[in-house]
Amino acid sequence: MKNITLLGATGSIGLQTLDVMREHPHQFRLYGIAFGKNVDKAKEIIAEFKPEKVVVQDEKIRNELLINTDQNTILVGKEGMEEVSADPETDVLVNAVMGSVGLGATLTAIKHKKQIAIANKETLVTAGHLVMKAAKQYGVDLLPVDSEHSAIFQALNGESQKDINKIILTASGGSFRDKTRDQLQGVTVTDALNHPNWSMGAKITIDSATMMNKGLEVIEAHWLFDVPYDKIKVIQHKESIIHSMVEYADKSIIAQLGTPDMRVPIQYALTYPDRLPLSSSKSLDLVEMSALHFSKMDMERFPCLAFAYHAGNKGGSLPTVLNAANEAAVDLFLREKITFLEIEQVIENAMENHSFVKQPDLETINEIDQEIRNKTYEKY
Amino acid sequence: MKNITLLGATGSIGLQTLDVMREHPHQFRLYGIAFGKNVDKAKEIIAEFKPEKVVVQDEKIRNELLINTDQNTILVGKEGMEEVSADPETDVLVNAVMGSVGLGATLTAIKHKKQIAIANKETLVTAGHLVMKAAKQYGVDLLPVDSEHSAIFQALNGESQKDINKIILTASGGSFRDKTRDQLQGVTVTDALNHPNWSMGAKITIDSATMMNKGLEVIEAHWLFDVPYDKIKVIQHKESIIHSMVEYADKSIIAQLGTPDMRVPIQYALTYPDRLPLSSSKSLDLVEMSALHFSKMDMERFPCLAFAYHAGNKGGSLPTVLNAANEAAVDLFLREKITFLEIEQVIENAMENHSFVKQPDLETINEIDQEIRNKTYEKY
Repeated sequence: MKNITLLGATGSIGLQTLDVMREHPHQFRLYGIAFGKNVDKAKEIIAEFKPEKVVVQDEKIRNELLINTDQNTILVGKEGMEEVSADPETDVLVNAVMGSVGLGATLTAIKHKKQIAIANKETLVTAGHLVMKAAKQYGVDLLPVDSEHSAIFQALNGESQKDINKIILTASGGSFRDKTRDQLQGVTVTDALNHPNWSMGAKITIDSATMMNKGLEVIEAHWLFDVPYDKIKVIQHKESIIHSMVEYADKSIIAQLGTPDMRVPIQYALTYPDRLPLSSSKSLDLVEMSALHFSKMDMERFPCLAFAYHAGNKGGSLPTVLNAANEAAVDLFLREKITFLEIEQVIENAMENHSFVKQPDLETINEIDQEIRNKTYEKY
Repeated sequence: MKNITLLGATGSIGLQTLDVMREHPHQFRLYGIAFGKNVDKAKEIIAEFKPEKVVVQDEKIRNELLINTDQNTILVGKEGMEEVSADPETDVLVNAVMGSVGLGATLTAIKHKKQIAIANKETLVTAGHLVMKAAKQYGVDLLPVDSEHSAIFQALNGESQKDINKIILTASGGSFRDKTRDQLQGVTVTDALNHPNWSMGAKITIDSATMMNKGLEVIEAHWLFDVPYDKIKVIQHKESIIHSMVEYADKSIIAQLGTPDMRVPIQYALTYPDRLPLSSSKSLDLVEMSALHFSKMDMERFPCLAFAYHAGNKGGSLPTVLNAANEAAVDLFLREKITFLEIEQVIENAMENHSFVKQPDLETINEIDQEIRNKTYEKY
């Protein structure tokens, strides 16, 4: 029986993690959760799974839960997330919070040598050099939950890192893959949230439409698999069936495939190196699919991907700027303060006007992250 | 430096094995070879690689080589192949002879705990129960050279056999995949030898056209990976890019992909568990491919595949009958003694008229193998 602590329990990855746990009540127990604003959903989770510890965003929500549930141990904020991540009872930390707010919990869990299932790609993007250095120091594996990185992780099973020729990330193309840049002028939030293949949270769905999601994944892959950027390629694959691939020195490619179902990579991160049945997931039927398609990724059509390669290559504080500006811009777009194409402009401006820091420590990263957000929100 | 002994050196797999060895002169040395009738090619190989030991088919060829080359150690026939397979200097045996004649050498190499790269699928088809029992007893890995089985072997890297949901073998469809059964009436040997994707020997190219090759591969996969027949599926994939796949308990599929190039699986069998660069092989460009197609395998269109599943499921002496009848029938077709569609009839008749033996030993297998060949040749 593994004790799972789940940060971001009411989000899309969080809820699908609970689906996986429901299938295997003898393997997993929900020890702790953290959630943001969705108190109603959190109450349901507490009633069903009876976690020992709950982390909430602020005192107001804490008081509400103290009155309305039997929950006794209710912690608050980033400190609460770090406490429950370090808790001796936590065996596996599933970090599925949205944005760079998840960074502290990841670093804490590493220092306490927890098994970490990481769905929070922003922590690797914004502080990959610190996270991976700590992971190496404490001998901790970061198990990716993103379908692409889980695919690469599975394709690397039993192989040597030194034999990697290149990593090939596949991209569905997102909600607007069939639109020209001109046609992107008038698109709405509702249009953008309509992803063709995956059911995901709002932020990542917008990131898919701008291709920033793939850009963040490129940076995440660089850190997770210690592969230089010129060996990380992106191709468009509209069906999202091949989740990603690794080409080895001998030109042999190992790929991971499946129906688009986040529960598969989530479960793999929980059970690794073993596998368990996942009866609720549908078997891939390639005959029914009939064909899989591939096309070139157009960096001019999707400048956010080019921004990400640039930030990753340059390194230092630039990925933090990229990520913070993107988080703020997507938030502004979702609240209809800026247009879809303005997301790119916000990020480009932030990167151009930033005073570069070569080796930022955690404090500097947090400062830059906050500064970029503040500046962006002031402007719009 | 590994000493390689290569049986079937002048055949398609043999020559491609030498290609791989040419790329890595510091890793591999050609210690021994065996060949059939192609004396001219053998002389070239002897001149270039200077193997210590050469095995020939008969005394006539032996005398010719003794006169025309500097080669001193020249062994003869099956006994010679077994001797060189058992030789203390042999590190890796590459068994790429055609047909069940390779069985003795494989069994000998197992008993001497050699690393075995097996391209001779007929030995597993005809005597899988004996070969795998011996491999288990002596703790020997059989490293597949067939592209499909190498793909499965690579997809199994780091995984547990118990987690296999199913094996999915891909089939190009062979030379006649776009023809109906009616259109197969008048096809010639030249038509049949024109495989759309792979450059291979004559026998395997005909086996691809009848789909018997896939049938033999189903039986081979059953033995190599210890998976029951109902968990081995075949789908048509005309581009031969995904070489085969494994679906695991969690519905995750691991596949191996690449351009159709036999040197990749050959090299992998020689370097396993490591990989080496293979500069002469072309990187797969999925964007250039644009699409991969999949369709249902039609057992009525390809009865040989149904025969193979039947023989495999029934077990005992039936796979030996299937294989011997097929070898004789393909030989008769290549010599234009029977038509393409008569290949199926020869196999079906042989299986129908056979007196089944449940647990054949090696002697019985050899007897049945010879008897089926004799009967077939007598008839045509």
